[in-house]
Amino acid sequence: MKRFRQYIGGAIIKGFAMVVIITAVGCSSEEKKTGANGTSETKNFDEKDLVQYVDPMIGTAKMGHTYPGATVPFGSIQLSPDTDTIPYGVDGHYNPDVYRYCAGYQYDDPTIVGFSHTHFSGTGHSDLGDFLIMPTTGELQMNPGTETNPDSGYRSRFSHDKEDAEPAYYSVILDDYNIKAELTATTRVGMHQYTFPKSEQAHIILDLTSGIYNYDNKNVWTFVRVENDTLVTGYRQTNGWARTRTVYFAMSFNKPVAKYGQVNYDNNVYKGFWRKFDQNTNFPEMAGENLKTYFDFNTSEGEKIKIKFAISPVSTIGAIKNMKAEIPHWDFDKVKTESQEKWNKELNKVQIEPINNAEMINFYTAMYHAFLGPTEYMDVDGKYRGLDMNIHQANGFTNYTSFSLWDTYRALHPLFNVLQPKRNSDMINSMIAHYDQSVHGMLPVWSHYANENWCMIGYHSVSVIADAIVKGNTGFDAKAALAASVHTAKVPYYDGLKYYMEKGYVPEDKNGASVSKTLEYAYDDWAIAQAAKKMENEAVYDEFIKRSENYKNVFDKNSGFMRPKLDDGSFKKQFDPLDTHGQGFIEGNSWNYSLYVPHDPKTIIELMGGKKQFSQHLDSLFSMELPDKYFANTEDISREGIIGNYVHGNEPSHHVVYLYNWTDTPWKSQDKIRMILKAMYQAKEDGLGGNDDFGQMSAWYIFSTLGFYPVAPGSDVYALGSPAMKSAKIQLENGNTFTVVAENQSEKNVFVDKVTLNGKELKAPFIKHSDIMQGGELHFYMSNSPNKNLYTTN
Amino acid sequence: MKRFRQYIGGAIIKGFAMVVIITAVGCSSEEKKTGANGTSETKNFDEKDLVQYVDPMIGTAKMGHTYPGATVPFGSIQLSPDTDTIPYGVDGHYNPDVYRYCAGYQYDDPTIVGFSHTHFSGTGHSDLGDFLIMPTTGELQMNPGTETNPDSGYRSRFSHDKEDAEPAYYSVILDDYNIKAELTATTRVGMHQYTFPKSEQAHIILDLTSGIYNYDNKNVWTFVRVENDTLVTGYRQTNGWARTRTVYFAMSFNKPVAKYGQVNYDNNVYKGFWRKFDQNTNFPEMAGENLKTYFDFNTSEGEKIKIKFAISPVSTIGAIKNMKAEIPHWDFDKVKTESQEKWNKELNKVQIEPINNAEMINFYTAMYHAFLGPTEYMDVDGKYRGLDMNIHQANGFTNYTSFSLWDTYRALHPLFNVLQPKRNSDMINSMIAHYDQSVHGMLPVWSHYANENWCMIGYHSVSVIADAIVKGNTGFDAKAALAASVHTAKVPYYDGLKYYMEKGYVPEDKNGASVSKTLEYAYDDWAIAQAAKKMENEAVYDEFIKRSENYKNVFDKNSGFMRPKLDDGSFKKQFDPLDTHGQGFIEGNSWNYSLYVPHDPKTIIELMGGKKQFSQHLDSLFSMELPDKYFANTEDISREGIIGNYVHGNEPSHHVVYLYNWTDTPWKSQDKIRMILKAMYQAKEDGLGGNDDFGQMSAWYIFSTLGFYPVAPGSDVYALGSPAMKSAKIQLENGNTFTVVAENQSEKNVFVDKVTLNGKELKAPFIKHSDIMQGGELHFYMSNSPNKNLYTTN
Repeated sequence: MKRFRQYIGGAIIKGFAMVVIITAVGCSSEEKKTGANGTSETKNFDEKDLVQYVDPMIGTAKMGHTYPGATVPFGSIQLSPDTDTIPYGVDGHYNPDVYRYCAGYQYDDPTIVGFSHTHFSGTGHSDLGDFLIMPTTGELQMNPGTETNPDSGYRSRFSHDKEDAEPAYYSVILDDYNIKAELTATTRVGMHQYTFPKSEQAHIILDLTSGIYNYDNKNVWTFVRVENDTLVTGYRQTNGWARTRTVYFAMSFNKPVAKYGQVNYDNNVYKGFWRKFDQNTNFPEMAGENLKTYFDFNTSEGEKIKIKFAISPVSTIGAIKNMKAEIPHWDFDKVKTESQEKWNKELNKVQIEPINNAEMINFYTAMYHAFLGPTEYMDVDGKYRGLDMNIHQANGFTNYTSFSLWDTYRALHPLFNVLQPKRNSDMINSMIAHYDQSVHGMLPVWSHYANENWCMIGYHSVSVIADAIVKGNTGFDAKAALAASVHTAKVPYYDGLKYYMEKGYVPEDKNGASVSKTLEYAYDDWAIAQAAKKMENEAVYDEFIKRSENYKNVFDKNSGFMRPKLDDGSFKKQFDPLDTHGQGFIEGNSWNYSLYVPHDPKTIIELMGGKKQFSQHLDSLFSMELPDKYFANTEDISREGIIGNYVHGNEPSHHVVYLYNWTDTPWKSQDKIRMILKAMYQAKEDGLGGNDDFGQMSAWYIFSTLGFYPVAPGSDVYALGSPAMKSAKIQLENGNTFTVVAENQSEKNVFVDKVTLNGKELKAPFIKHSDIMQGGELHFYMSNSPNKNLYTTN
Repeated sequence: MKRFRQYIGGAIIKGFAMVVIITAVGCSSEEKKTGANGTSETKNFDEKDLVQYVDPMIGTAKMGHTYPGATVPFGSIQLSPDTDTIPYGVDGHYNPDVYRYCAGYQYDDPTIVGFSHTHFSGTGHSDLGDFLIMPTTGELQMNPGTETNPDSGYRSRFSHDKEDAEPAYYSVILDDYNIKAELTATTRVGMHQYTFPKSEQAHIILDLTSGIYNYDNKNVWTFVRVENDTLVTGYRQTNGWARTRTVYFAMSFNKPVAKYGQVNYDNNVYKGFWRKFDQNTNFPEMAGENLKTYFDFNTSEGEKIKIKFAISPVSTIGAIKNMKAEIPHWDFDKVKTESQEKWNKELNKVQIEPINNAEMINFYTAMYHAFLGPTEYMDVDGKYRGLDMNIHQANGFTNYTSFSLWDTYRALHPLFNVLQPKRNSDMINSMIAHYDQSVHGMLPVWSHYANENWCMIGYHSVSVIADAIVKGNTGFDAKAALAASVHTAKVPYYDGLKYYMEKGYVPEDKNGASVSKTLEYAYDDWAIAQAAKKMENEAVYDEFIKRSENYKNVFDKNSGFMRPKLDDGSFKKQFDPLDTHGQGFIEGNSWNYSLYVPHDPKTIIELMGGKKQFSQHLDSLFSMELPDKYFANTEDISREGIIGNYVHGNEPSHHVVYLYNWTDTPWKSQDKIRMILKAMYQAKEDGLGGNDDFGQMSAWYIFSTLGFYPVAPGSDVYALGSPAMKSAKIQLENGNTFTVVAENQSEKNVFVDKVTLNGKELKAPFIKHSDIMQGGELHFYMSNSPNKNLYTTN
């Protein structure tokens, strides 16, 4: 984004127009050069330079929790600046707001602490931040210092004027040292390029104590070997969010180190009888709980110190292998170019013609965010550390980790079934491997780096699996996946599941957030049933389709809401459907969660008084004024993440606007979808309405912009909405192209007047997954007023 | 030893006589049965039941530092009772004398804390004590309690009357619980058999916080998975003496666990947003810094709960593999029998006819102690963790660890070149692998479990290597071994080596214990030169034979002693040749260390005034009265470990008594050798004159009892002494037999009147390694008075 950002200044979106016109109509510079416009051979259509529209800075302010650093699609390395990560600074200053630093970077911060190699994108919990590197000059300082007194440590002031964030590239001037920092990455290797001033005191600090979610000294052990004067290896073992996590590294310099050393805060020197060595300087083997190391150089003016930094979940030998395989040279620009090309390849899977130019940035930044994770988690030879802490071999698949499943099962994995079917299959292979290694016999809940974190609720791996099975995307052992789903859904000690299985609901007096759990278990059970149906496993279908009706057990006819029920079968007396905490819900009040029966909208509509009343109920949701007192109880989102009482910044209502399709007023969804897109996704640093949640928010944006949405993953049906672009061409992995056209599209023409699929008018607001995958054209005719008779069936 | 010990009571040695007569003349029960007495076919001679003479209790009192538990020859598992290991008890009682507990067991202690799986034998530093198991009944107690108040914890009172220690078998009655504990082991698997009373509260405690050398909370991390109701896996990572050490385990019960749980002292439960589980009871995944677990059973009267406990340096998968390979059944007695048979095989390598019966116990206990380590360190598939913390494959050799080389290069590894040449070659292969993995490019100094501890001084791996090369025992890459030796000897930052290389000595004002270091480096350099010579590498020979003369640089002609020299070339002014600490020496004063030129006795004899004066000097060493004040400065040994000013309990003088052979008074060595054997090795718990030092003290005993000793490993020459048995048959791995006969032998006939080798009279008090290896007979004729003209040359 640098070029636009710099010459246009604040008026990014407006100034963008000219450029967009050139590229968005399918005429990239490459095409111009070859004159091959429109005549593709091996590809469906020619690749455009879409990387330029991605702005990694979007979401880096407030609660977006994205990071601006360098990474490739689904890469293991996320090499990114940290502006603050540790709760305690050198002056004892405590930073209580660690949650702000889930991704290590907050746009408003004035200093950069350093560049670390691993970051979650958009998550609602933090960890990682491994292997912080910081280049400095002058007197060696081994503590980071504080934001208020950056001179007290190695951190540096910086400004956004001298900062550039692009896919697979980040650069910034570190003002305190006059060092230009540039970062790029391959899947397993981060590459640093630091342009130094002339200095006889040029330092590269590798701080192994720094980390994200660094409460209570997260470090368990650190180990460093200086193998020779350009190669350093080691590992870091942490007890952070993941309880037992180890990451190995190999770090290579382009120039011999002149001098190096450690500051070992717990003095874990060798315990031989005598202090035989100076173990602090030029001693090649260091270990301890809290190790910091430095590497010194003499630099000439403008000299570039480059670092290749490979990670491995297995061993330092694995890290060295990864480094040699992925970057066998020192050409920084070559890595940058090739990695950006990888991004272009992924981004080109959807080529849109936008309504306005901000949409180009929004759309391709959403594509970028959607393709950041789950991340690859294995060495180039397929080895990885499993949940049992043993080393496993990924045979025939790519192993992935960092599954934020409570978020991503909703739209991100369904999006992958369209745009990344191979990867989605391998993610499921990774889940099955997780299951095989799990001593609980459970598929992942929220897992990363060989750890299960048990975060949030449900067992939504089963949804991801069912969605893939139902949609025929089964590059995995579907029978094993179904068996794993069934076993997962029956682990009695998991989160109220014993009660759920016995009583058909989770009793609030036995296990909190009981309504949310009951509703999500019921949906998950339905998903298992769908997979079983597809696989003609009648017994499992029967068992789980029955369980899927359990949502009815927490519906209170008197109040008309889902309501916490107690162990004795009675509803909880005190009940406020606008409140969340301690009220039987999590990240959503009863107003929102009562609508969480994605697998059976018809029944819930009936329960709530029929189509008309339900439609009005939805209207109220979007239009009511939520009293102030409830905002404090709404997690993880900016106040901007709420429209009326509709909470888009959290996930449970992501399908809600599409529920109009099951009423007689599908048209009511159309303007609201466009409103949400506009309100919740803005092309600026604080433009996201809440955590991006590892791509789930972005996936909602992408689907909704294209005009359809997977209300119930595990079904092959998409609900139609209101497309928010002029046209989109989706290049499928199977070689087919699915095109969506929105004729007469404009910012005002948010209603759909007519819609055809391959020329045939649709009378119901739905399409099927096979409609997409076989290629074809979905043609919307847009209007500024609703066509209330558009759909005659639903 | 149980049978003799129990019915004879205190008078062990006396009561032993009858039995010895039967077996010691070469007439085992097996021989009687077959009538094959004296006519061996595949073996040189028939195997006897020698296991019965081994008393693992010898050395368990005072400073012997041996353990009484179950192990096989060179086994990875040393499953042994710990009577106290942790510095802090539950009542805050601090045990400052952790050094006493190097092997976990002190004979005089009244309680047993539990049974742990790894122990050093006889070392002068402690570590290990992994995976303490304790069976209890009644109310569950998860702390060990204290010796003074055993009821405050899980430990139990016991008495030696109800204790039995044999090779590969240990048993004891745990009085507080009326549980009979029995232990046996294979190489990688410990087997427990606990006979319980009837109880509905029968517990097996697995305390992962217990350990030897447990200062400052040695634990770094512990991890446990209950895989199913009979199998538990996990690991323990410690920062003890070894700084970065991890041992994995798999534990199998012969009966399903009824209930289990943890006490996790640092509350490292899962950090999900909510406490979803009861993580303390029946929850199969536990981790944290200080984990203790328990496993409950209901037992009937006399019911045996059995445990197979396998360890691995690699992974829990490795541990499970080891368990399946080594003990694929539940027959405790079968394991015991087979493992004792392994001991018999090793013990039968030397069959002696003793002078008295105590000698049978002493000799075979010495053989037992000599064959305890170094220990095997790899999984059954050859995988092991290397110094670089990566997993390596031992290709074509057995990998060993726990090299106490400052001790064992002197006599233990030379003994292995006679009795265990294959294993000694593989130990050298293991050292070369260590070198290859060492970031320092150094062979082991004192290493165990993928860690270098840098304990004591010198680089004596080079002696072990040179000794094997010179003696033609090269089942390893001799060229690589020589290169590794040369590189090791040149690492400038190692322990004063830079100064040594620059100045020819270590200056005391730069690096303490400087004289000891200079002398040992000089000897090691000579060893390298000998290997180079044998391999016809003239350059290396020239370089190191020159360095080997450096001992001369610290010889002070004025005082007639080796004396610390300062950086400026002058000798240290204040100097007391009787003192050790801070005087330029370590574990030996100048009186002893001045004699440490094993590779060049002739020159040091000249320097010290010639043969006559030197002989008198040795006389003084053995006869002088050491003033009390010096005892406090003599490490690691009982006061009984000192004869005059001769310190046998530490190693630097182990060759000294044999130096008489280079004077005109070789006969003076003969009575003194017999005196040392008698004084320093007694068949009782406190019978060892000092730490057994992983077999070095025992190897001295074995060589000296056989009548010859390797004064300078790296030479193929043995100095003759005075044999201390009537006859000995050595069964060599090459199929040959070397016999030593001492005619007219008695406790009084300690002098040698004549000696022949294969019938030919020896005129010099030396034999060669090849004389032994080609088989034959060394025939001593003993006398009660010296034959001062026995040897005419030396």
